[in-house]
Amino acid sequence: MTTPVLYTCARSRGLRATWAAEEAGVALDLKILPFPPRYLAPEFMALNPLGTVPLLVDGDTRMTESCAIAHYLGTREGYTDLSIAPGEQDYGAYCDYTYHADATITFPQTVYMRFAIFEKDKGLAEAGVAYAKWFHKRLVKVEQRLEGREFLCADRFTVADICVGYALILAESVGLDEGVPESLKAYRARLTAREAYQRAFAREEEGRLALAS
Amino acid sequence: MTTPVLYTCARSRGLRATWAAEEAGVALDLKILPFPPRYLAPEFMALNPLGTVPLLVDGDTRMTESCAIAHYLGTREGYTDLSIAPGEQDYGAYCDYTYHADATITFPQTVYMRFAIFEKDKGLAEAGVAYAKWFHKRLVKVEQRLEGREFLCADRFTVADICVGYALILAESVGLDEGVPESLKAYRARLTAREAYQRAFAREEEGRLALAS
Repeated sequence: MTTPVLYTCARSRGLRATWAAEEAGVALDLKILPFPPRYLAPEFMALNPLGTVPLLVDGDTRMTESCAIAHYLGTREGYTDLSIAPGEQDYGAYCDYTYHADATITFPQTVYMRFAIFEKDKGLAEAGVAYAKWFHKRLVKVEQRLEGREFLCADRFTVADICVGYALILAESVGLDEGVPESLKAYRARLTAREAYQRAFAREEEGRLALAS
Repeated sequence: MTTPVLYTCARSRGLRATWAAEEAGVALDLKILPFPPRYLAPEFMALNPLGTVPLLVDGDTRMTESCAIAHYLGTREGYTDLSIAPGEQDYGAYCDYTYHADATITFPQTVYMRFAIFEKDKGLAEAGVAYAKWFHKRLVKVEQRLEGREFLCADRFTVADICVGYALILAESVGLDEGVPESLKAYRARLTAREAYQRAFAREEEGRLALAS
Protein backbone atom coordinates (compact mmCIF):
# COMPACT_ATOMS: atom_id res chain seq x y z
CA MET A 1 0.00 0.00 0.00
CA THR A 2 1.06 3.60 -0.54
CA THR A 3 2.09 5.82 2.37
CA PRO A 4 -0.71 8.33 2.96
CA VAL A 5 0.33 11.98 3.02
CA LEU A 6 -1.36 14.23 5.57
CA TYR A 7 -1.19 17.99 5.13
CA THR A 8 -2.21 19.73 8.31
CA CYS A 9 -1.46 22.48 10.82
CA ALA A 10 -0.31 21.51 14.30
CA ARG A 11 -3.16 21.30 16.87
CA SER A 12 -5.84 21.84 14.21
CA ARG A 13 -8.68 19.40 13.62
CA GLY A 14 -6.08 17.42 11.67
CA LEU A 15 -4.87 16.18 15.05
CA ARG A 16 -7.74 13.69 14.80
CA ALA A 17 -6.03 12.20 11.74
CA THR A 18 -2.50 12.24 13.17
CA TRP A 19 -3.81 10.62 16.34
CA ALA A 20 -5.86 7.98 14.51
CA ALA A 21 -2.83 7.05 12.43
CA GLU A 22 -0.77 6.50 15.61
CA GLU A 23 -3.54 4.41 17.18
CA ALA A 24 -3.97 2.36 13.98
CA GLY A 25 -0.25 1.94 13.31
CA VAL A 26 -0.56 3.58 9.89
CA ALA A 27 2.70 5.29 8.80
CA LEU A 28 1.89 8.83 7.67
CA ASP A 29 4.00 11.21 5.65
CA LEU A 30 3.20 14.25 7.78
CA LYS A 31 3.43 17.71 6.17
CA ILE A 32 2.95 20.48 8.71
CA LEU A 33 1.89 23.79 7.17
CA PRO A 34 1.93 27.27 8.70
CA PHE A 35 -1.47 28.59 9.83
CA PRO A 36 -3.43 29.79 7.98
CA PRO A 37 -2.16 27.91 4.90
CA ARG A 38 -4.48 29.92 2.64
CA TYR A 39 -2.15 32.91 3.14
CA LEU A 40 1.13 31.42 4.35
CA ALA A 41 1.35 28.39 2.04
CA PRO A 42 -0.66 29.49 -1.02
CA GLU A 43 0.72 26.63 -3.12
CA PHE A 44 -1.48 24.37 -0.95
CA MET A 45 -4.58 25.76 -2.70
CA ALA A 46 -3.59 23.77 -5.81
CA LEU A 47 -3.83 20.57 -3.75
CA ASN A 48 -6.97 21.57 -1.87
CA PRO A 49 -9.06 24.37 -3.38
CA LEU A 50 -10.93 24.69 -0.07
CA GLY A 51 -7.68 25.87 1.51
CA THR A 52 -8.60 23.96 4.66
CA VAL A 53 -6.61 21.48 6.70
CA PRO A 54 -6.38 18.57 7.06
CA LEU A 55 -5.97 17.07 3.60
CA LEU A 56 -5.21 13.37 3.26
CA VAL A 57 -3.84 12.06 -0.02
CA ASP A 58 -3.72 8.26 -0.15
CA GLY A 59 -3.19 7.10 -3.72
CA ASP A 60 -6.29 8.28 -5.60
CA THR A 61 -8.12 9.05 -2.34
CA ARG A 62 -8.29 12.69 -1.25
CA MET A 63 -10.12 13.64 1.92
CA THR A 64 -10.60 16.91 3.80
CA GLU A 65 -12.89 16.07 6.72
CA SER A 66 -10.98 15.28 9.89
CA CYS A 67 -13.53 12.86 11.36
CA ALA A 68 -13.87 11.06 8.04
CA ILE A 69 -10.07 10.72 7.79
CA ALA A 70 -9.82 9.38 11.34
CA HIS A 71 -12.54 6.80 10.61
CA TYR A 72 -10.90 5.93 7.28
CA LEU A 73 -7.47 5.39 8.86
CA GLY A 74 -9.09 3.06 11.38
CA THR A 75 -10.74 0.97 8.63
CA ARG A 76 -8.22 1.34 5.79
CA GLU A 77 -7.32 -2.34 5.89
CA GLY A 78 -10.74 -3.45 7.14
CA TYR A 79 -12.44 -3.17 10.50
CA THR A 80 -10.26 -3.22 13.61
CA ASP A 81 -10.99 -2.56 17.28
CA LEU A 82 -10.65 1.17 16.54
CA SER A 83 -13.94 1.22 14.66
CA ILE A 84 -17.25 -0.59 14.85
CA ALA A 85 -18.67 -2.59 11.96
CA PRO A 86 -22.32 -2.83 10.86
CA GLY A 87 -24.13 -5.36 13.01
CA GLU A 88 -21.72 -5.01 15.94
CA GLN A 89 -23.01 -3.66 19.27
CA ASP A 90 -22.99 0.16 19.40
CA TYR A 91 -22.58 0.48 15.62
CA GLY A 92 -25.25 3.19 15.48
CA ALA A 93 -23.75 5.11 18.40
CA TYR A 94 -20.31 4.89 16.81
CA CYS A 95 -21.63 6.44 13.60
CA ASP A 96 -23.56 9.06 15.53
CA TYR A 97 -20.66 10.29 17.70
CA THR A 98 -18.15 10.42 14.86
CA TYR A 99 -20.51 12.81 13.00
CA HIS A 100 -21.66 14.66 16.13
CA ALA A 101 -18.07 15.57 16.99
CA ASP A 102 -17.55 17.99 14.13
CA ALA A 103 -21.03 18.97 12.93
CA THR A 104 -22.41 19.71 16.40
CA ILE A 105 -19.58 20.29 18.90
CA THR A 106 -16.63 21.58 16.86
CA PHE A 107 -18.23 23.87 14.28
CA PRO A 108 -19.88 26.17 16.87
CA GLN A 109 -16.47 26.64 18.50
CA THR A 110 -15.08 27.83 15.17
CA VAL A 111 -17.88 30.41 14.94
CA TYR A 112 -16.90 31.58 18.42
CA MET A 113 -13.22 31.74 17.44
CA ARG A 114 -13.98 33.76 14.33
CA PHE A 115 -16.21 36.46 15.79
CA ALA A 116 -15.00 36.58 19.40
CA ILE A 117 -11.25 36.08 18.83
CA PHE A 118 -9.85 36.42 15.28
CA GLU A 119 -12.23 39.18 14.14
CA LYS A 120 -13.23 40.62 17.48
CA ASP A 121 -12.69 44.18 16.23
CA LYS A 122 -15.54 43.78 13.74
CA GLY A 123 -18.29 44.28 16.30
CA LEU A 124 -19.78 40.80 15.95
CA ALA A 125 -18.34 39.24 19.11
CA GLU A 126 -21.88 38.69 20.40
CA ALA A 127 -22.49 36.25 17.54
CA GLY A 128 -19.43 34.30 18.61
CA VAL A 129 -20.52 34.26 22.24
CA ALA A 130 -23.96 32.98 21.16
CA TYR A 131 -22.29 29.95 19.59
CA ALA A 132 -20.05 29.39 22.61
CA LYS A 133 -23.25 29.08 24.65
CA TRP A 134 -24.73 26.82 21.98
CA PHE A 135 -21.63 24.58 22.19
CA HIS A 136 -21.83 24.24 25.98
CA LYS A 137 -25.52 23.31 25.84
CA ARG A 138 -24.87 20.65 23.23
CA LEU A 139 -22.35 18.85 25.48
CA VAL A 140 -25.26 17.25 27.36
CA LYS A 141 -25.39 14.36 24.89
CA VAL A 142 -21.76 13.29 25.42
CA GLU A 143 -22.02 13.99 29.14
CA GLN A 144 -25.03 11.68 29.56
CA ARG A 145 -23.48 9.03 27.33
CA LEU A 146 -20.35 8.85 29.46
CA GLU A 147 -22.23 8.35 32.74
CA GLY A 148 -20.87 4.97 33.82
CA ARG A 149 -18.78 4.56 30.67
CA GLU A 150 -15.04 4.99 30.18
CA PHE A 151 -15.36 5.34 26.40
CA LEU A 152 -18.25 6.28 24.10
CA CYS A 153 -18.86 2.94 22.41
CA ALA A 154 -18.57 -0.79 22.98
CA ASP A 155 -16.55 -0.48 26.21
CA ARG A 156 -13.37 0.25 24.29
CA PHE A 157 -11.41 3.14 22.83
CA THR A 158 -12.54 3.87 19.26
CA VAL A 159 -12.31 6.60 16.64
CA ALA A 160 -15.50 8.06 18.17
CA ASP A 161 -13.36 9.02 21.20
CA ILE A 162 -10.76 10.60 18.93
CA CYS A 163 -13.41 12.66 17.12
CA VAL A 164 -15.24 13.85 20.24
CA GLY A 165 -12.02 14.10 22.26
CA TYR A 166 -10.58 16.65 19.86
CA ALA A 167 -13.63 18.88 20.28
CA LEU A 168 -12.93 18.93 24.03
CA ILE A 169 -9.20 19.54 23.48
CA LEU A 170 -10.11 22.50 21.28
CA ALA A 171 -12.45 23.91 23.95
CA GLU A 172 -9.57 24.09 26.40
CA SER A 173 -7.21 25.71 23.91
CA VAL A 174 -9.67 28.44 22.85
CA GLY A 175 -10.76 29.38 26.36
CA LEU A 176 -14.16 27.67 26.47
CA ASP A 177 -13.36 25.27 29.29
CA GLU A 178 -15.35 27.06 31.93
CA GLY A 179 -18.63 25.63 30.62
CA VAL A 180 -17.27 22.10 30.14
CA PRO A 181 -18.52 19.61 32.78
CA GLU A 182 -15.88 18.10 35.08
CA SER A 183 -16.76 14.60 33.88
CA LEU A 184 -15.82 15.59 30.34
CA LYS A 185 -12.56 17.15 31.49
CA ALA A 186 -11.73 13.84 33.19
CA TYR A 187 -12.61 11.96 30.00
CA ARG A 188 -10.35 14.30 28.01
CA ALA A 189 -7.51 13.72 30.48
CA ARG A 190 -7.90 9.93 30.01
CA LEU A 191 -7.70 10.35 26.26
CA THR A 192 -4.75 12.72 26.11
CA ALA A 193 -2.78 10.45 28.47
CA ARG A 194 -2.71 7.76 25.77
CA GLU A 195 0.70 7.07 24.30
CA ALA A 196 -0.59 7.31 20.74
CA TYR A 197 -2.01 10.77 21.45
CA GLN A 198 1.30 11.88 22.97
CA ARG A 199 3.21 10.62 19.93
CA ALA A 200 0.82 12.35 17.52
CA PHE A 201 1.03 15.63 19.40
CA ALA A 202 4.85 15.44 19.51
CA ARG A 203 5.09 14.71 15.77
CA GLU A 204 2.97 17.75 15.00
CA GLU A 205 4.98 19.97 17.36
CA GLU A 206 8.23 18.81 15.78
CA GLY A 207 6.88 19.83 12.37
CA ARG A 208 5.63 23.15 13.68
CA LEU A 209 8.95 24.01 15.31
CA ALA A 210 10.84 23.04 12.14
CA LEU A 211 8.70 25.59 10.25
CA ALA A 212 9.58 28.34 12.68
CA SER A 213 13.32 27.75 12.49
CA MET B 1 -35.89 -6.53 13.65
CA THR B 2 -37.68 -3.67 15.37
CA THR B 3 -39.27 -0.85 13.38
CA PRO B 4 -37.09 2.24 13.84
CA VAL B 5 -38.90 5.37 15.03
CA LEU B 6 -37.83 8.68 13.50
CA TYR B 7 -38.77 11.92 15.26
CA THR B 8 -38.28 14.85 12.93
CA CYS B 9 -39.70 18.08 11.51
CA ALA B 10 -40.75 18.17 7.87
CA ARG B 11 -38.03 19.50 5.51
CA SER B 12 -35.42 19.63 8.29
CA ARG B 13 -32.10 17.79 8.09
CA GLY B 14 -34.13 14.77 9.11
CA LEU B 15 -35.19 14.57 5.46
CA ARG B 16 -31.85 12.81 4.93
CA ALA B 17 -33.08 10.03 7.20
CA THR B 18 -36.59 9.82 5.73
CA TRP B 19 -35.09 9.73 2.24
CA ALA B 20 -32.45 7.13 3.11
CA ALA B 21 -35.13 4.89 4.61
CA GLU B 22 -37.15 5.07 1.37
CA GLU B 23 -34.07 4.30 -0.74
CA ALA B 24 -33.08 1.41 1.54
CA GLY B 25 -36.57 -0.02 1.88
CA VAL B 26 -36.51 0.35 5.67
CA ALA B 27 -40.00 0.81 7.16
CA LEU B 28 -39.93 3.80 9.50
CA ASP B 29 -42.40 4.82 12.15
CA LEU B 30 -42.36 8.52 11.28
CA LYS B 31 -43.26 11.04 13.98
CA ILE B 32 -43.50 14.56 12.59
CA LEU B 33 -43.10 17.26 15.25
CA PRO B 34 -43.95 20.97 15.06
CA PHE B 35 -40.96 23.29 14.60
CA PRO B 36 -39.19 24.14 16.84
CA PRO B 37 -39.96 21.08 19.01
CA ARG B 38 -38.04 22.59 21.93
CA TYR B 39 -40.98 25.00 22.42
CA LEU B 40 -43.89 23.38 20.63
CA ALA B 41 -43.37 19.75 21.70
CA PRO B 42 -41.51 20.10 25.04
CA GLU B 43 -42.18 16.46 25.92
CA PHE B 44 -39.63 15.65 23.18
CA MET B 45 -36.82 16.95 25.44
CA ALA B 46 -37.25 13.83 27.60
CA LEU B 47 -36.42 11.69 24.57
CA ASN B 48 -33.63 13.94 23.28
CA PRO B 49 -32.13 16.40 25.76
CA LEU B 50 -30.50 18.26 22.84
CA GLY B 51 -33.98 19.20 21.66
CA THR B 52 -32.81 18.78 18.07
CA VAL B 53 -34.30 16.81 15.21
CA PRO B 54 -33.92 14.23 13.84
CA LEU B 55 -33.85 11.57 16.52
CA LEU B 56 -33.79 7.91 15.51
CA VAL B 57 -34.72 5.26 18.06
CA ASP B 58 -34.01 1.73 16.84
CA GLY B 59 -34.15 -0.72 19.73
CA ASP B 60 -31.30 0.37 22.02
CA THR B 61 -29.81 2.62 19.33
CA ARG B 62 -30.45 6.36 19.61
CA MET B 63 -29.00 8.73 17.05
CA THR B 64 -29.32 12.47 16.47
CA GLU B 65 -27.00 13.22 13.52
CA SER B 66 -28.84 13.21 10.20
CA CYS B 67 -25.88 12.08 8.08
CA ALA B 68 -25.04 9.34 10.56
CA ILE B 69 -28.66 8.14 10.53
CA ALA B 70 -28.75 8.11 6.71
CA HIS B 71 -25.53 6.07 6.60
CA TYR B 72 -26.81 3.78 9.34
CA LEU B 73 -30.10 3.11 7.55
CA GLY B 74 -28.13 2.21 4.41
CA THR B 75 -25.97 -0.30 6.33
CA ARG B 76 -28.40 -1.51 9.00
CA GLU B 77 -28.50 -5.01 7.59
CA GLY B 78 -24.96 -4.85 6.16
CA TYR B 79 -23.49 -3.06 3.18
CA THR B 80 -25.74 -2.47 0.18
CA ASP B 81 -25.32 -0.42 -3.00
CA LEU B 82 -26.41 2.65 -0.99
CA SER B 83 -23.14 2.74 0.91
CA ILE B 84 -19.51 1.86 0.21
CA ALA B 85 -17.59 -0.67 2.27
CA PRO B 86 -13.93 -0.51 3.36
CA GLY B 87 -11.71 -1.65 0.52
CA GLU B 88 -14.25 -0.82 -2.19
CA GLN B 89 -13.40 1.86 -4.77
CA ASP B 90 -14.25 5.38 -3.53
CA TYR B 91 -14.55 4.25 0.08
CA GLY B 92 -12.52 7.25 1.27
CA ALA B 93 -14.52 9.69 -0.83
CA TYR B 94 -17.77 8.20 0.44
CA CYS B 95 -16.69 8.75 4.04
CA ASP B 96 -15.45 12.24 3.23
CA TYR B 97 -18.61 13.50 1.53
CA THR B 98 -20.99 12.08 4.12
CA TYR B 99 -19.13 14.11 6.80
CA HIS B 100 -18.52 17.15 4.58
CA ALA B 101 -22.26 17.51 3.96
CA ASP B 102 -23.17 18.60 7.45
CA ALA B 103 -19.93 19.82 9.06
CA THR B 104 -18.89 22.01 6.14
CA ILE B 105 -21.87 22.79 3.91
CA THR B 106 -24.94 22.63 6.14
CA PHE B 107 -23.76 24.14 9.42
CA PRO B 108 -22.76 27.52 7.88
CA GLN B 109 -26.25 27.78 6.40
CA THR B 110 -27.73 27.38 9.86
CA VAL B 111 -25.55 30.26 11.12
CA TYR B 112 -26.89 32.35 8.23
CA MET B 113 -30.48 31.36 9.08
CA ARG B 114 -30.05 32.24 12.72
CA PHE B 115 -28.50 35.70 12.42
CA ALA B 116 -29.84 36.84 9.04
CA ILE B 117 -33.38 35.37 9.24
CA PHE B 118 -34.68 34.13 12.61
CA GLU B 119 -32.90 36.74 14.77
CA LYS B 120 -32.36 39.46 12.17
CA ASP B 121 -33.61 42.12 14.59
CA LYS B 122 -30.65 41.49 16.90
CA GLY B 123 -28.19 43.45 14.77
CA LEU B 124 -25.97 40.48 13.93
CA ALA B 125 -27.15 39.88 10.36
CA GLU B 126 -23.64 40.58 9.10
CA ALA B 127 -22.39 37.48 10.95
CA GLY B 128 -25.01 35.44 9.12
CA VAL B 129 -24.08 36.91 5.76
CA ALA B 130 -20.41 36.11 6.44
CA TYR B 131 -21.32 32.44 6.79
CA ALA B 132 -23.50 32.51 3.67
CA LYS B 133 -20.40 33.63 1.79
CA TRP B 134 -18.36 30.95 3.53
CA PHE B 135 -20.92 28.32 2.44
CA HIS B 136 -20.80 29.39 -1.21
CA LYS B 137 -16.99 29.28 -1.28
CA ARG B 138 -16.95 25.78 0.21
CA LEU B 139 -19.12 24.42 -2.64
CA VAL B 140 -16.02 24.23 -4.85
CA LYS B 141 -15.17 20.77 -3.57
CA VAL B 142 -18.49 19.19 -4.58
CA GLU B 143 -18.54 21.21 -7.80
CA GLN B 144 -15.13 19.88 -8.90
CA ARG B 145 -15.98 16.35 -7.80
CA LEU B 146 -19.10 16.27 -9.99
CA GLU B 147 -17.29 17.37 -13.16
CA GLY B 148 -17.91 14.37 -15.41
CA ARG B 149 -19.74 12.45 -12.69
CA GLU B 150 -23.47 11.88 -12.23
CA PHE B 151 -23.09 10.92 -8.55
CA LEU B 152 -20.39 11.60 -5.97
CA CYS B 153 -19.01 8.09 -5.54
CA ALA B 154 -18.51 4.83 -7.41
CA ASP B 155 -20.70 5.81 -10.39
CA ARG B 156 -23.87 5.11 -8.46
CA PHE B 157 -26.32 6.81 -6.15
CA THR B 158 -25.25 6.47 -2.51
CA VAL B 159 -25.95 7.98 0.88
CA ALA B 160 -23.21 10.54 0.08
CA ASP B 161 -25.62 12.02 -2.48
CA ILE B 162 -28.41 12.11 0.11
CA CYS B 163 -26.19 13.91 2.62
CA VAL B 164 -24.79 16.50 0.19
CA GLY B 165 -28.06 16.75 -1.75
CA TYR B 166 -29.92 17.91 1.34
CA ALA B 167 -27.43 20.75 1.87
CA LEU B 168 -28.28 21.96 -1.64
CA ILE B 169 -32.02 21.52 -1.05
CA LEU B 170 -31.68 23.64 2.09
CA ALA B 171 -29.81 26.36 0.18
CA GLU B 172 -32.76 26.78 -2.16
CA SER B 173 -35.30 26.85 0.64
CA VAL B 174 -33.46 29.50 2.69
CA GLY B 175 -32.72 31.84 -0.22
CA LEU B 176 -29.04 31.04 -0.77
CA ASP B 177 -29.43 29.67 -4.29
CA GLU B 178 -27.96 32.67 -6.06
CA GLY B 179 -24.40 31.62 -5.24
CA VAL B 180 -24.95 27.93 -6.04
CA PRO B 181 -23.31 26.85 -9.34
CA GLU B 182 -25.67 25.74 -12.14
CA SER B 183 -24.01 22.31 -12.22
CA LEU B 184 -24.99 21.76 -8.59
CA LYS B 185 -28.56 22.90 -9.26
CA ALA B 186 -28.73 20.30 -12.05
CA TYR B 187 -27.34 17.65 -9.68
CA ARG B 188 -29.96 18.59 -7.08
CA ALA B 189 -32.70 18.33 -9.72
CA ARG B 190 -31.51 14.80 -10.61
CA LEU B 191 -31.63 13.82 -6.95
CA THR B 192 -35.02 15.30 -6.10
CA ALA B 193 -36.54 13.63 -9.18
CA ARG B 194 -35.92 10.22 -7.62
CA GLU B 195 -39.05 8.34 -6.63
CA ALA B 196 -37.70 7.58 -3.16
CA TYR B 197 -37.08 11.30 -2.53
CA GLN B 198 -40.61 12.14 -3.68
CA ARG B 199 -42.08 9.50 -1.39
CA ALA B 200 -40.02 10.73 1.58
CA PHE B 201 -41.01 14.36 0.97
CA ALA B 202 -44.69 13.38 0.64
CA ARG B 203 -44.63 11.35 3.87
CA GLU B 204 -43.18 14.30 5.76
CA GLU B 205 -45.72 16.73 4.27
CA GLU B 206 -48.56 14.41 5.20
CA GLY B 207 -47.33 14.42 8.80
CA ARG B 208 -46.88 18.18 8.80
CA LEU B 209 -50.39 18.81 7.45
CA ALA B 210 -51.88 16.41 10.01
CA LEU B 211 -50.27 18.53 12.76
CA ALA B 212 -51.82 21.70 11.41
CA SER B 213 -55.33 20.28 11.23
